Amino acid sequence: RKIALIPGDGIGPEIVKEAKKVLDKVCEVYGHEFVYEELLLGGASIDAHGVPLTQETIEKAKSSDAVLMGSIGGDAKTSSWYQLEPSKRPEAGLLGIRKALNLFANLRPAYLYEELKAACPLKEEVIGDGFDLIIVRELTGGLYFGERRTTEENGIRTAVDTLSYNEEEIRRIAIQAFEIAKKRRKKVTSVDKANVLDSSRLWRSVVEEVAADYPDIILEHMLVDNCAMQLVHNPGQFDVILTENMFGDILSDEASMVTGSIGMLSSASLNETGFGLYEPSHGSAPDIAGKGIANPIATILSAAMLLRFSLDLDKEADAVEKAVAEVLKEGFRTPDIFSDGMKKAGTEEMGTLIAEKIR
Amino acid sequence: RKIALIPGDGIGPEIVKEAKKVLDKVCEVYGHEFVYEELLLGGASIDAHGVPLTQETIEKAKSSDAVLMGSIGGDAKTSSWYQLEPSKRPEAGLLGIRKALNLFANLRPAYLYEELKAACPLKEEVIGDGFDLIIVRELTGGLYFGERRTTEENGIRTAVDTLSYNEEEIRRIAIQAFEIAKKRRKKVTSVDKANVLDSSRLWRSVVEEVAADYPDIILEHMLVDNCAMQLVHNPGQFDVILTENMFGDILSDEASMVTGSIGMLSSASLNETGFGLYEPSHGSAPDIAGKGIANPIATILSAAMLLRFSLDLDKEADAVEKAVAEVLKEGFRTPDIFSDGMKKAGTEEMGTLIAEKIR
Ligand SMILES: CC(C)[C@H](C(=O)O)[C@@H](O)C(=O)O
Ligand SMILES: CC(C)[C@H](C(=O)O)[C@@H](O)C(=O)O
Repeated sequence: RKIALIPGDGIGPEIVKEAKKVLDKVCEVYGHEFVYEELLLGGASIDAHGVPLTQETIEKAKSSDAVLMGSIGGDAKTSSWYQLEPSKRPEAGLLGIRKALNLFANLRPAYLYEELKAACPLKEEVIGDGFDLIIVRELTGGLYFGERRTTEENGIRTAVDTLSYNEEEIRRIAIQAFEIAKKRRKKVTSVDKANVLDSSRLWRSVVEEVAADYPDIILEHMLVDNCAMQLVHNPGQFDVILTENMFGDILSDEASMVTGSIGMLSSASLNETGFGLYEPSHGSAPDIAGKGIANPIATILSAAMLLRFSLDLDKEADAVEKAVAEVLKEGFRTPDIFSDGMKKAGTEEMGTLIAEKIR
Repeated sequence: RKIALIPGDGIGPEIVKEAKKVLDKVCEVYGHEFVYEELLLGGASIDAHGVPLTQETIEKAKSSDAVLMGSIGGDAKTSSWYQLEPSKRPEAGLLGIRKALNLFANLRPAYLYEELKAACPLKEEVIGDGFDLIIVRELTGGLYFGERRTTEENGIRTAVDTLSYNEEEIRRIAIQAFEIAKKRRKKVTSVDKANVLDSSRLWRSVVEEVAADYPDIILEHMLVDNCAMQLVHNPGQFDVILTENMFGDILSDEASMVTGSIGMLSSASLNETGFGLYEPSHGSAPDIAGKGIANPIATILSAAMLLRFSLDLDKEADAVEKAVAEVLKEGFRTPDIFSDGMKKAGTEEMGTLIAEKIR
């Protein structure tokens, strides 16, 4: 089995290293052999080749069984990077590989860990019985992939981005969401801005067409501004949230912060054949890069998803998830999820502790 | 002084009635006479004239000193309304009047009421020293006002919306934000998606140009997905959030829910001359319309903003705000902000209690 590793930018290399440590232990215990290939993407690719994504990275990713990624992205607080041509920014590499591999379905679970309730920013009474939702985000269409241009006329600059969806793009992601809901609590909340946008209006009507094939699943529509509120007000109401690219970007980050465990949340980006790129839900956190304090668990759990979905190694995926749970139960915490009475652990220690528990 | 009243849809008529009750009492106590004119907009205008906005409403609003509005909007949960032609939906009336009156600057304060800490969904330690931020949202550009079209080719429907900003549109809203920050804690957080969008890249560079004229004000850039997280994680870090139309729509709703007091938050939409339309930050809440339980305070506080900003009646505005504070201190609460040990009040009772305290 061939796994492509993309360490990426910021904390990416540190956390991917720990995930690989865990995968190595899986191989040892279960008698597998994985062949790894490190690929460059984003800032790392710019440093080496002057561009954020090369044809070589695309080809090698395609010829692997799955891709495990750290994180990609510049430091948004500095103004130097955004002045770069869009196609030369690190983020263009991530957008480019999503498109090149046709990874249209981005699955981002957000759930409240019983052990980490202390890290959740919400009050007990808002948490209620807890929450466990998954955001199904369309990942290769919409505003992030539309035509764009900046022009100047009479000395006045105008910039334009385009949000476009066709019904096939909407249909395939809607089917994903309903298929996932089937194995869960059977509710889909489709999020749009259908009171204003044409693309949302088409979104809503295609989602309703798909829903007709899933009579057991409850479909609910929600406007994006309302959804941003409901995630804070009552996250327990959601099972599967289905939405387009940009809304999914904003809402999934909000949802993961609402859990208090953003350093714990994995994600998968899949194409139609089940091939996938797996990465933590969080970003490249340039402010803590190199400090040895980043939480590697989201990446380790992404590796577990990879084992399960792309390599069909369920037992092994279970073992990784169990190891993570045990280490948490023993009280080890990276700073992002630390609370009183717990034991502090750094990135490497966390990886080692989890690897040791694989059996 | 001429005030145009737009009761609107859903709970709009109920809450505007209470705000008018309070304004009547202001007139009685301070010896003013306001001339009111009720205008139709949104669903109410569709019912009467078949369109969500008439030229008459525009003209009458223009000839008034200010506009006080309840809320506009259909029931997003039903699928009937979104199938309407965009231009025939209630929301088109609101978008239309914003454009017709050139109300490009939408100010949405979100703060934590000391008395209402119990209603805030966040834990004490996240609240910290409390928070008091204001979102300055661009209101007449971007995706909500761009060209849109739905086409069909070979039986496949495609829908397109366009996000466009020119530098003058960005500059005038940025200036508003910096002017407001000058009178506050002197920090502007400009929110964009400059790692992907051309419009955000232009946004960022124009905001930096404007910032050069305000050397005392700290400017910070933040990506929209990160901002959606930070509002939950640490709302106390924000003073003024400056952003474009759609991001402002999503983030201001999130921020107001984070306060726990969405029924308490007013907003102003201003043009370049200071003329304004004042409305609660919340929506038309069709699910509780007609039940007499909607919180009228956001609308009453919007009336106070109207007195202050459009009629220059500071003393009177102070009196309204003080009356609201007193009624809260006495323990009266509508259901949305109710907590143990408080006294339940309905829409009408709340309005009457506040009006009685105007002196
Ligand atoms: C880095 C950026 C382009 C990316 C996105 O917005 O899609 C990231 O925020 C994410 O959510 O994966
Ligand atoms: C009703 C709708 C068009 C409107 C908007 O999105 O601008 C509302 O959500 C608001 O925020 O005022």
